[in-house]
Amino acid sequence: MNATIITIGDEILIGQIVDTNTASIARKLNAIGIAIKEKTSIGDSAEEIKGCVGRAMQQSKVVIMTGGLGPTKDDITKTTLAEMFDTTLEYNEAEGEHIRTLLARRNIPFTQLNRAQALVPKCCTVLHNAHGTAPGMWFDTAEGGIVISLPGVPFEMEHLMDDIVIPRLKERLTLRSIVHKTLITRGIPESLLAERIEKWEDELPEYMHLAYLPAPNIVRLRLSAYDVEAEMAESAIEAEFTKLREMIGENIVGWEGATMEQQVHDILTRRGLTLATAESCTGGTIASKFTAMAGASAYFLAGVVAYANSAKSNIIGVNAEDIAREGAVSECVARQMAEGVRRVSGADYAIATTGIAGPSGGSEAKPVGTVWMAVATPNGTIARMRNCGTDRSQIISRASAYAIEMLYDHIKNM
Amino acid sequence: MNATIITIGDEILIGQIVDTNTASIARKLNAIGIAIKEKTSIGDSAEEIKGCVGRAMQQSKVVIMTGGLGPTKDDITKTTLAEMFDTTLEYNEAEGEHIRTLLARRNIPFTQLNRAQALVPKCCTVLHNAHGTAPGMWFDTAEGGIVISLPGVPFEMEHLMDDIVIPRLKERLTLRSIVHKTLITRGIPESLLAERIEKWEDELPEYMHLAYLPAPNIVRLRLSAYDVEAEMAESAIEAEFTKLREMIGENIVGWEGATMEQQVHDILTRRGLTLATAESCTGGTIASKFTAMAGASAYFLAGVVAYANSAKSNIIGVNAEDIAREGAVSECVARQMAEGVRRVSGADYAIATTGIAGPSGGSEAKPVGTVWMAVATPNGTIARMRNCGTDRSQIISRASAYAIEMLYDHIKNM
Repeated sequence: MNATIITIGDEILIGQIVDTNTASIARKLNAIGIAIKEKTSIGDSAEEIKGCVGRAMQQSKVVIMTGGLGPTKDDITKTTLAEMFDTTLEYNEAEGEHIRTLLARRNIPFTQLNRAQALVPKCCTVLHNAHGTAPGMWFDTAEGGIVISLPGVPFEMEHLMDDIVIPRLKERLTLRSIVHKTLITRGIPESLLAERIEKWEDELPEYMHLAYLPAPNIVRLRLSAYDVEAEMAESAIEAEFTKLREMIGENIVGWEGATMEQQVHDILTRRGLTLATAESCTGGTIASKFTAMAGASAYFLAGVVAYANSAKSNIIGVNAEDIAREGAVSECVARQMAEGVRRVSGADYAIATTGIAGPSGGSEAKPVGTVWMAVATPNGTIARMRNCGTDRSQIISRASAYAIEMLYDHIKNM
Repeated sequence: MNATIITIGDEILIGQIVDTNTASIARKLNAIGIAIKEKTSIGDSAEEIKGCVGRAMQQSKVVIMTGGLGPTKDDITKTTLAEMFDTTLEYNEAEGEHIRTLLARRNIPFTQLNRAQALVPKCCTVLHNAHGTAPGMWFDTAEGGIVISLPGVPFEMEHLMDDIVIPRLKERLTLRSIVHKTLITRGIPESLLAERIEKWEDELPEYMHLAYLPAPNIVRLRLSAYDVEAEMAESAIEAEFTKLREMIGENIVGWEGATMEQQVHDILTRRGLTLATAESCTGGTIASKFTAMAGASAYFLAGVVAYANSAKSNIIGVNAEDIAREGAVSECVARQMAEGVRRVSGADYAIATTGIAGPSGGSEAKPVGTVWMAVATPNGTIARMRNCGTDRSQIISRASAYAIEMLYDHIKNM
């Protein structure tokens, strides 16, 4: 059982937006046992849509498309589908009323263009879009296939998938399961890791597929099994991961979804400990990573983005003479930042960063990318320097990751 | 002249990663006048790769693919391409030495798997990957087409595109230009906007294409022209935008790339004014948006993530009794946060947010999504409440955008 996903919109083809819809739809379909054969993006062209949907119907039982359902002239998905399925558009009273109500709530008049959004192909089942003005459409094809058209606005697409499309697909189709599980390793490069686990990989059951997903500093290992009984496959994969833990236990950081900050979050929450941050070059990124997680208020007390030297001194008490003598990017300033925010917030732990994010501000002794990080703990402070790259966004993101990792390493065995 | 982009990897098809490579490649190709016909993602399967590349070669002069070039068993792009082009793999001494040097720098031994990365199809031109171990490949097909295979690691792909592929394509092909320009409007819904500018839209020159890109609170209007002389098309589009400014000037916020925070950044930099932030529910997101921009240190003095009530009082002097009486999510606390951080940092302007990001913590009077925002200025403080949605990440992102917009509205005419 497989599906093809089609996303429609010139803005995708010219790279004006990154298409996040397909990844989300793919995850939701995988979760109910439908594999993705292909994902394709095309422009707002009737000819392209017809060709692409036609081809998708030949290769997949289920075709899900997003985009091109707005009220303006560049949106042509609906009329093109009506042509393809040899039907006409008719006004849907219920959808029309829904659109009118939504607009009235925002004090927007109901125009001809909005009325046109309630026009739907006669032969389709209307999928009610509770969160927007463009209804979704479900077509059952003469060949027994299913073609689904959803709005491209991610929020609306998500709700339509979760609330209507997924339950309906489960009801209609007899599905087995797809299981993916991912371990995160660090400290061992991909090629060495592959050699180290080669024998284990060769002995994996036929139906399990191993993938390596490298990223700076980590390699993720994913085992996938398609068209299986979920519980059986999950425990079989768990058993394989147990063998892996025996072989490379010291390199395993966690499992998919368990980012370093999530693990710190879990440990601090479980132990009732608290955290504060003092950031210079990372500019609030570390604080925002923690506070993005539900429940962060249980342990995250305060963050200070001490960007100006005066802020370092005034808010968290870094010695101004030390800044003048050693420079803001120095071990002693990083240490005083961590200790200072720990003191003013009353937190158990504190993370600090100070570095040169660039593009300007570097020198020969301290080139762009130089970052000092410190972690203040109830038992003293540790600090280290790392070079975090050459590009501003890369430096901010790596320095944040490394600093969180320092804290993780300190508390991981708690 | 068009191209097809193919991204290869099971991790894309199962939705484990969002494919950002295609948007980046599309932008780079558009910039030299090559339009994208289609973007397709397929799994690590020889059969799929052959079918997809074969089809792409029929419809496009240029085919660019990424992924599947790593050292492990799941990477099969290179051997599949060698089969397709009826050639064998041979060891490339120069690439082998480069890989050996890269690994030595990181104290990693050179293994058989690394050696295999220096194997390349005989008939291709090797594209030297200065930043990684997987070389890119350029095939000139018998039919006069070009097939390019690049590593999937975004950083490596970017450098190969910029440093080698783009210059080489420009040298090889006779290209005209593609021009895209985008205006950002706000405060007018898509359907009303479309009605308001309908006459203008109908009178656009044949070769200009208008697209509407709605997002919460804004609609972007993009004019595109394909296969044109760049300068002529750019000034023609500018002339159309000038007409638009006369019609809906009060709704135009800026142009593509000029986000609200960039405009605040520009104004503060130009006027030599400074900024501080005090964030509760947005948790450092506002500070990180400003500090992500090069040059932020000229005006961004300090941010405080005052998550715990004690941090609100101790670090930026919010009255603890007011918090107890009015609640942390209240107008008076938002005002005191903005004023407090303005005072301790010495900044000219300060932005503050305090709200309920959820999923827990809401009440009937203050449901999840309730956010108070304040802007402290040299001439007093303004505050307002907005409901920012229902989902934690949505609330953080909207509250950040609205709060920055409040400051922008205050200083935009400076």
